[in-house]
Amino acid sequence: MTSTNPVITLTTDFGLRDGFVGVMKGVIYGICPHAHIVDISHDVGPQDVREGAYVLARQAFYFPENTVHIAVVDPGVGTARRPLAARVGQHFYVAPDNGVLTPVYEKAGQEGWPLHVVQLNKPEYWLKNISYIFHGRDIFSPVGAHLACGVPLEEVGDPIDDPAYLRLPRPEFEGGIWQGEVTHIDHFGNIASNIHREHVGAGQVQAARVGGQRVADWVNAFGDRPPGTLVCLYSSIDFVIVSEVNGDAAARLGVKVGDAFEVEIA
Amino acid sequence: MTSTNPVITLTTDFGLRDGFVGVMKGVIYGICPHAHIVDISHDVGPQDVREGAYVLARQAFYFPENTVHIAVVDPGVGTARRPLAARVGQHFYVAPDNGVLTPVYEKAGQEGWPLHVVQLNKPEYWLKNISYIFHGRDIFSPVGAHLACGVPLEEVGDPIDDPAYLRLPRPEFEGGIWQGEVTHIDHFGNIASNIHREHVGAGQVQAARVGGQRVADWVNAFGDRPPGTLVCLYSSIDFVIVSEVNGDAAARLGVKVGDAFEVEIA
Amino acid sequence: MTSTNPVITLTTDFGLRDGFVGVMKGVIYGICPHAHIVDISHDVGPQDVREGAYVLARQAFYFPENTVHIAVVDPGVGTARRPLAARVGQHFYVAPDNGVLTPVYEKAGQEGWPLHVVQLNKPEYWLKNISYIFHGRDIFSPVGAHLACGVPLEEVGDPIDDPAYLRLPRPEFEGGIWQGEVTHIDHFGNIASNIHREHVGAGQVQAARVGGQRVADWVNAFGDRPPGTLVCLYSSIDFVIVSEVNGDAAARLGVKVGDAFEVEIA
Repeated sequence: MTSTNPVITLTTDFGLRDGFVGVMKGVIYGICPHAHIVDISHDVGPQDVREGAYVLARQAFYFPENTVHIAVVDPGVGTARRPLAARVGQHFYVAPDNGVLTPVYEKAGQEGWPLHVVQLNKPEYWLKNISYIFHGRDIFSPVGAHLACGVPLEEVGDPIDDPAYLRLPRPEFEGGIWQGEVTHIDHFGNIASNIHREHVGAGQVQAARVGGQRVADWVNAFGDRPPGTLVCLYSSIDFVIVSEVNGDAAARLGVKVGDAFEVEIA
Repeated sequence: MTSTNPVITLTTDFGLRDGFVGVMKGVIYGICPHAHIVDISHDVGPQDVREGAYVLARQAFYFPENTVHIAVVDPGVGTARRPLAARVGQHFYVAPDNGVLTPVYEKAGQEGWPLHVVQLNKPEYWLKNISYIFHGRDIFSPVGAHLACGVPLEEVGDPIDDPAYLRLPRPEFEGGIWQGEVTHIDHFGNIASNIHREHVGAGQVQAARVGGQRVADWVNAFGDRPPGTLVCLYSSIDFVIVSEVNGDAAARLGVKVGDAFEVEIA
Repeated sequence: MTSTNPVITLTTDFGLRDGFVGVMKGVIYGICPHAHIVDISHDVGPQDVREGAYVLARQAFYFPENTVHIAVVDPGVGTARRPLAARVGQHFYVAPDNGVLTPVYEKAGQEGWPLHVVQLNKPEYWLKNISYIFHGRDIFSPVGAHLACGVPLEEVGDPIDDPAYLRLPRPEFEGGIWQGEVTHIDHFGNIASNIHREHVGAGQVQAARVGGQRVADWVNAFGDRPPGTLVCLYSSIDFVIVSEVNGDAAARLGVKVGDAFEVEIA
């Protein structure tokens, strides 16, 4: 890696109140002083590995080549679950082996990228004293910093070929309807599904159904309709979403992650 | 621009939970790897352009020369509203043309700074694929990064002379009283008005009136009175505020942004 | 200081909404453009000097040599309380003289580090215009930036030998029981005491008692027990804590900071 300012990202369920994120950055700068560190999110629900997987994968591929993505949603910290690092596409990943990288592995499958995964078992790349319950600070941050500063993946651990996967829900097509589910509700209350522009394909979306509502007003952008209108559109990463213009669709419809979300195709 | 570490700031209504801010930083570092990125606030109320305008202008002028301020409170994203960049005083700005830069333009008027505003219409400075609903990631961040790394303002768009302005409330003076309004309630519950030290001028503040309370105890600093005391004083940017020492004045008085705030002058 | 990227940390009670933290960073980069700035926490309770002291000291010692830690929890801002800077161990500190550095001074005592403390009284290292109520922006940030960029401690103020200390609660041992108190409840609801691994020493923890509950299930890590189990263990900085596996122990037990926390030793 020859970039003068390698980028490291952090995705965790730690919140920002206690200094857990700050101390990871202190450890990283002690090893790789010229890195830039970017917070993706620290508001993943506690122990919610699936949410962590989604939030990381929504943003990861927009980062510069050789970015090191550290993801720590880690209910099994200190147990037999393995710590991992991986090279996938043009990025590195450091995370516990609990499936939090599943969408990254799947992306590799779609893109034909080889999957290089190692089990972190070289303590010389960790902090000297390892706690049982904060591998984010003691193992993942130092390994991520070493990778960002040019240590080869092969140095930090031995290859494995059986990383853990989450079972993520897939939409199914039946009778002209894609049957999916709500995978994300964002800060604005936009309701995102797992039904992608590629599922819709050459068809046309007639309506989305979620929370007992059928929303047939397909738009390109929120501002195409007056405030308060329920609309459906593609999200910024091309999934079908339902939104209220200048409002909170999820609150209005009482929808939560995991609820059914259907898309009628013409 | 010759600084080795240009500064880019971000002010948005995106919140920190979804990774929307993180991905903007990923895009920026891909274009301008040695920038420093500073978050001003991501807790602007959803679609609240006026609040975004205020929060940016309170902090913007303290930043180093050539700082690029990116402000994205953008309910009209994807519609005909123009994306802009500007050079005002010693800083650059990148934002939608919805008035979020109004206090910056007004500052230019007060200071006699020329106003250079361009409409962003050179897609070669944007991401390759532009979504309809996330120009913060696809247009504003890449343009800001190019400006920070030395691309001249004139390269990223064509000049315009009719940027949009918000109508911001002005205090009026009548019968010895400045009649203003509450423009900001901060994290501590301090109640800030739009009545500036320059409005008070050579006069003396006798009292502030807000939320049905007349507060006549003028101080320099919170610690000048015991906890629980209601005081009035100048804020750190020289507006008249009402505070409760070690307490939350806004909660105590039931005050919100837009309420009347009056200052008696002797 | 020869590091190419000095590190500055910020710990405050400012929250992230108003831009108070952002403007401190703007001031810092104007003085020391190649610094890296790390947020430790900005969610210290308003005016809660003790909480600020704890959150800083939990993380400070993991940072690289010559890191400058700026801590601003400052109810006395603008009054006679002194602004300070200090060199302790391998780090610098900048803070109001209200005890927020107490655990740092105590660490120095334990480690035998000399304590170099100066009163900030050289306005040439401050912003030109000093507000009464935002020394975080006007004094602490510029001084911290100058220290990070190599100005010697002795240049920014005159030595003092009587910095203010907080009286922090100490656990007491009686009848085989360490009697301490709850000093921190983290984002996950883990309940931390002030009883350290060194208090336990060669003994064995039989049980922890907090919130009317006796928790006798001592583990190394959360994942050693099924979700919902109450366990006791060492925190990542070696204090005895009580946790609910994948749950919120503090909410379950109705515990708050300051409550009694006892540890039975065998």
